Formats: sequence, C-alpha cells, structure tokens
Amino acid sequence: MNLLTLWDTISAIREQCPLVHNITNFVTMNNSANALLACGASPAMVHSPDEVAEFVQLAKSLVVNIGTLYEDQITGMKLAAQTANKSGIPWVLDPVGVGATSLRKRVVKELLQLKPTLIRGNASEILSIANDNLSGGRGVDSIHSSESAVSIAKDLANQQNCVVATTGATDFITDGTEIMSIHNGHPLMSKVTALGCSLSAILGACLAVNRNALESATAGIAFFGLAGEIAAERSRGPGSMQVEILNALYELTSKDFCGRIKVQNLPKQ
Amino acid sequence: MNLLTLWDTISAIREQCPLVHNITNFVTMNNSANALLACGASPAMVHSPDEVAEFVQLAKSLVVNIGTLYEDQITGMKLAAQTANKSGIPWVLDPVGVGATSLRKRVVKELLQLKPTLIRGNASEILSIANDNLSGGRGVDSIHSSESAVSIAKDLANQQNCVVATTGATDFITDGTEIMSIHNGHPLMSKVTALGCSLSAILGACLAVNRNALESATAGIAFFGLAGEIAAERSRGPGSMQVEILNALYELTSKDFCGRIKVQNLPKQ
Amino acid sequence: MNLLTLWDTISAIREQCPLVHNITNFVTMNNSANALLACGASPAMVHSPDEVAEFVQLAKSLVVNIGTLYEDQITGMKLAAQTANKSGIPWVLDPVGVGATSLRKRVVKELLQLKPTLIRGNASEILSIANDNLSGGRGVDSIHSSESAVSIAKDLANQQNCVVATTGATDFITDGTEIMSIHNGHPLMSKVTALGCSLSAILGACLAVNRNALESATAGIAFFGLAGEIAAERSRGPGSMQVEILNALYELTSKDFCGRIKVQNLPKQ
Repeated sequence: MNLLTLWDTISAIREQCPLVHNITNFVTMNNSANALLACGASPAMVHSPDEVAEFVQLAKSLVVNIGTLYEDQITGMKLAAQTANKSGIPWVLDPVGVGATSLRKRVVKELLQLKPTLIRGNASEILSIANDNLSGGRGVDSIHSSESAVSIAKDLANQQNCVVATTGATDFITDGTEIMSIHNGHPLMSKVTALGCSLSAILGACLAVNRNALESATAGIAFFGLAGEIAAERSRGPGSMQVEILNALYELTSKDFCGRIKVQNLPKQ
Repeated sequence: MNLLTLWDTISAIREQCPLVHNITNFVTMNNSANALLACGASPAMVHSPDEVAEFVQLAKSLVVNIGTLYEDQITGMKLAAQTANKSGIPWVLDPVGVGATSLRKRVVKELLQLKPTLIRGNASEILSIANDNLSGGRGVDSIHSSESAVSIAKDLANQQNCVVATTGATDFITDGTEIMSIHNGHPLMSKVTALGCSLSAILGACLAVNRNALESATAGIAFFGLAGEIAAERSRGPGSMQVEILNALYELTSKDFCGRIKVQNLPKQ
Repeated sequence: MNLLTLWDTISAIREQCPLVHNITNFVTMNNSANALLACGASPAMVHSPDEVAEFVQLAKSLVVNIGTLYEDQITGMKLAAQTANKSGIPWVLDPVGVGATSLRKRVVKELLQLKPTLIRGNASEILSIANDNLSGGRGVDSIHSSESAVSIAKDLANQQNCVVATTGATDFITDGTEIMSIHNGHPLMSKVTALGCSLSAILGACLAVNRNALESATAGIAFFGLAGEIAAERSRGPGSMQVEILNALYELTSKDFCGRIKVQNLPKQ
C-alpha cells in the first residue's frame, strides 16, 4: 500500500466532512464526537430505536459499539445496522468486552449476522468472537497480544466477508487475504479511557470516504497511532494525553504521516 | 443595552451560585456541568421521570436539551417543563438536530406547547422549528447561516412569546421586537463537541439570576463567545480548546468583558 | 496509622491493576474510568441488569453511585450489590444528592440493606442518610461542613457496620470507633464536576487491594486530595484542573505522599 494513498483517506475526511452516525457507549460518547470533529468529520450520537433507522440514512457511515449495553439500545443497533445494509452504508462493529458476559456474546452474534463492513477490537475481543467458550479479557482490557489473534482474525474476516482490525502494541488489519501490520502508537494510550472506541469512530469516518475497508482501516489506525505518539511526546501523563491526542488529530500533516507511519504488508502465509 | 448591565448578569451568577437543573444529552452532560461550575453556578443533571418534578422545584432554572432522546427522558422533560411553568421557573429549550428526524420534530412541537422562556439553536434548527417540512442541518451541525434565520426567529419569538437565540458565526437574539447581534466567538469552537449545549446550560444560569431573557441571553452568549476567543488564543487545537474555555469562563473579568464584547442592537425593520 | 502502610494501598493498585466494576452516573463515567486508569486500576462501566451479576464476579470490587438514576439501573445496582455480597466482593456506595428527592432516599435505603463496605458522601449526603426528614444539600453540592457530620457519621458506621467517609474541606473517615481526619485537597476541586464520584471510584480500587476499609479509604482520600493540591499548583482554572489531576494521580510518588499528606487519628470521644 502506498503511503500517499493512505493519506488520501485522511485528507478526504477533512475535505468532505462526512456525517458519521454513532451508536456507542456512555463512556466514550464525548471522546468519540471530539475525535471525529478533530479529524474533520461531523459526528452524531443517535441511539433511540424511534429514530435510528431514519437518521442512519442521512449518514455516510455507522459505528456500533457495545460498551454499555441496554435493551433499547440493542434494538436501535440492530435497526440501524439493517437499514445501513439496505442503503449500502458501511458500518463498523466495536465488540467492547465481548468475552465478559453472555449478554455481550449474544448481542455480538446477532450483530455479526447483520454483516459489519469492519470489526475492530483488541486481541481478547477478536479471540472471544471466534471462540464462544473463551472468556477473554479482563473486563474491557485485553489479556492477549494482538499477534496471538492474527490467524483467527484472518479466518473471521473470511467467514464474515469483512475486514477485521485487531489493535494492540502492534495492530493487524486483514481482509482474509492480505494482512497489514502497524507499529505506531504509544503505551500511554492504554492509560486513557475510550481511545479504542474513539479509533472505531474514526474508522467510521475513513469508511465514509473510502469504501476499500482494508485501505481505509489501515489509514485510520496508522493516523490514530501516530497522533498518539505525537501526543505522548507532549504529555506528562494521561490527563494531558487526552487533550494532546485531539490536538494531534487536528494538526497532523501529510508530511508527519508519510514520514512517521510504520505500515507493513505481511507476506502471505 | 449597556455593557455594564450585561456584566451584572454574569457577576450575579458568581455571587448567587444558582442551582440549574439540566435534562440534557449524554454527550454534553459532563461539559455542561463543568461549564456551569466554571461560571459559578451549581449544576444538577437529573432526568428520571420519577424525580424531575420534585427536583426542578429546588432549582432556579431548567435547561432541556434533546440531543440524545429516549422515551423515559422525553416523559421527564415534559414533567419538568410543566412543573417549571407552574412554579414560575424559567426554562431553556435546546432543540438539537430537530430537523433530522420525525421523533425530534414531534418532541420539540410538544415542548413548545410548554412555553419555553428561551429557545437557543443553530440556524438550521431554528429554521426547522418554523418550517415543518424543512429537513435542515447535517445531523446536529447547521448548514444555514444565522443571518438567514433572523426574520424567522423574530416570527417564532412573537408566536411563542419567548426569546429566540440563533447562534453561529454571528449570533442573533430576539424577543420578537428587538434584535441583538453578537460578533464574538472563534471558528475553533465548532471543532469541539457540545459547546452549543454548554452555552444553553449557561443561558439557564443567566435566566436564573435575570428574568429579562433578552438581556440575560445576550449577556450569556457574549460571555461564552468571548471565553471562546480567549481560549482559542491559548490553544493549539480542539483538545486544548476544551480545557481553555473552562479556564476562561472561570477567569474572565468585567474589564475583559466590557472591553472586548461586540454587541449591537439592530435597527428595527 | 503509618504513612508507609497507607502508601502500600496505593502502590498495590499500581502493581495489581484490579478490575473495578462501576455502576455510576452519566456525568462521571468518563472521569471515573480515567481516574481509575491513572491510578493503575482497570475500570469497567457495566450497568445493565442483564449482565451486572455475571460481570461483578469478575471484579475485585464494586462502586455504586446514584447520580443519575433510572429504573433499570436501580435494578442493576441491587443485583450487583447482592452478588458482590454473596461473592465476598467489597463495595462502595456513593449516595449522590440523596437528600434532594424521595426517589434517591428510597433507593439509598434499599441499598443500605445490601450492606456496603464503605459509604462516601459529602456532609449533606451523610446527614440526609441519617435523618430521613432532612432535605440536605443544594442539588448535589453540600450545604453543611464535614465537621457537622462527624458524630452522625460515627453512628451510621456503627449502625451499618461499615466505614463512612465524609469528604469536604476536611475529610473524616470512621469505622464507628476510630476517626481519621485528612487536611489535603484544594478549593479549586469544587469547581470541577464529578471529582467526588471519581474519588469514590478510586476508593473502590483501594478496597480491591486492601480489605481494611478504614485504612484503604484513608489512603485513597489522602492520595486524591494530594493529587488535587498538586494539580491546583499547575492549573490556571478548572479546565486545567481536570487534566492535571489525572496527571498527578499517575505521577505521584511515595515521597510526595509521605511528605505531604496530613492525616490525623482523632482522639476517641
């Protein structure tokens, strides 16, 4: 993948300011909206079953995040995903803490039937989706390395006919054939809540402007990781990090991006 | 309007620390609470239908914001607005994204019957209220200039017997007779989520200490715009902006206010 | 109490990274999660009645905060507290604004029957729990000094067989026999929303690693107060304060802690 092609996705968000519809958890609503605004997108947080089907048709993409589930929201998620599919609107699934409870496992199983364009999770989440009996993760944090999920992510991508992004110290993105790896980011990112959720929201913006999900997810994850690196250089701790990552998403140039991202196309196995 | 008279409203908030009851969306709850605290008010976020009627009677004003609607909250909004009216407590309506879905249109129509003291929205929202068939806005962002809504805002103020504030690059506040315009603020404000909602919360604090809604809304909007200007001078991007606007709301002096606000009373048409 | 013993609780959080289950209000969800991460704990915000009982058994402690109640969440709180008791998991009750409405009084009464390990509130909240007829507080802010609640807090601790922490300008922690007082903290902390809630979340992390509730609550409250002092030194207003308190929680060393905390064991009365 060409670095300038990847940058095209980021720059298209800034130019087109796509409306991204988020049905997400209460912890990240504010962060995800700010992350989308900082990237140049227009966020909307709309979850009532009484309006999601109408609203999603105005949007360029949909993001569904199961972080803090409740019954009405689950209904809203399904309605929105169904409508997105009918209207040809791409959508991202973020299966937060899926391994932790049977409610989450059931909801993710139902959402997978509605054909997400892209699934983004940490390694424990991706492993839990693939293996019903695995109770992965410690709450919403991963206890597995992203490397350990690579081949299962590939199988999942093939089975679901979608792109799967497993994020962690190294990020892996696969469409079932190609596997991209990314070595950007910073450990301090794991000390700020909802950054994974914000990344999923940004991937919604990427899909809104570039329907090639392998390419747009790679661009978005590299962009976010790099913003995290730059933010960490300016931060004395996790409080500053939350602020500086939004500044970096807003300021980051094609020169920074092309000069500093570490993306590799892994050899096929 | 005299600048020192406008400042009186801000300084009365700091002295009286009025309790402002907010029924607002999940994106802005934290921001609105912090904005109210930074101004010197005491915020409460209470939305359950089982307690709003009791709670609103303890408050000096009520703010109703439809950003992330759900059935129980709608019930709570109506109960609170009815009780506010009975108890003579002024209330603010923020019709977030009203043009986007029929649910929002219906809820706003019902809330208008409960006689808000002040309506604050962007131009697309104000136009949508006035014109049922207009699907204005891109999600929650305006696609119209505030200038284009001036005369419709005036009609709405007359029809509703309330004050209507249309905010944007220029802000217009009208009671149906007078029209005040404000040229403060900064473009970076549009890159931070929930600032419009925070402004509506602050207008609740202004009404709590000054029942002249044209005057108190003008004071609050100028104050907030100026805080945004000062914050932008200290910010490298939207992350810092969110921090610095709270600092500016807290620090701003009568000298800054009277020296820098740009308020005009438009000639009557 | 030995200062190094108090520090052991803080340092154990950093080493063990305990999973803390929070059922909390919408204003503080993000802040509490970030405060827990900054301290070294692993936060989870899970409230649906369909998953709390399953989830709490994965956690090392539970925090229940009634700030923005709704019916399903109340059900979830009770289920989680019951399960925590059965599984021997300690839990914290934060009775936000309990004096303000009869709903809050009823819910707190029901939760007290489920035997919290620790109750943390401001003086108006502690007084309201003890006196059914007292409508204390202005919304969620205290109108009483913490001193005025000391003897009532002691009675409550005896009656409930738990530890009661009354926080304010001076903090008092009692198990019904001993009373610890803490003189750390800074007035600017009262200008940032949800800091009391964040403290309650941190006390959940303290209990997760140290079951001696008098000791772990004293450690957590002193730690948080000191972080607030350090943050205030670096802050021009409440916006910066929110950022710097997370940085301070993350950075604070045993040297800072032992050198600056002001803890006293009050003579028995």
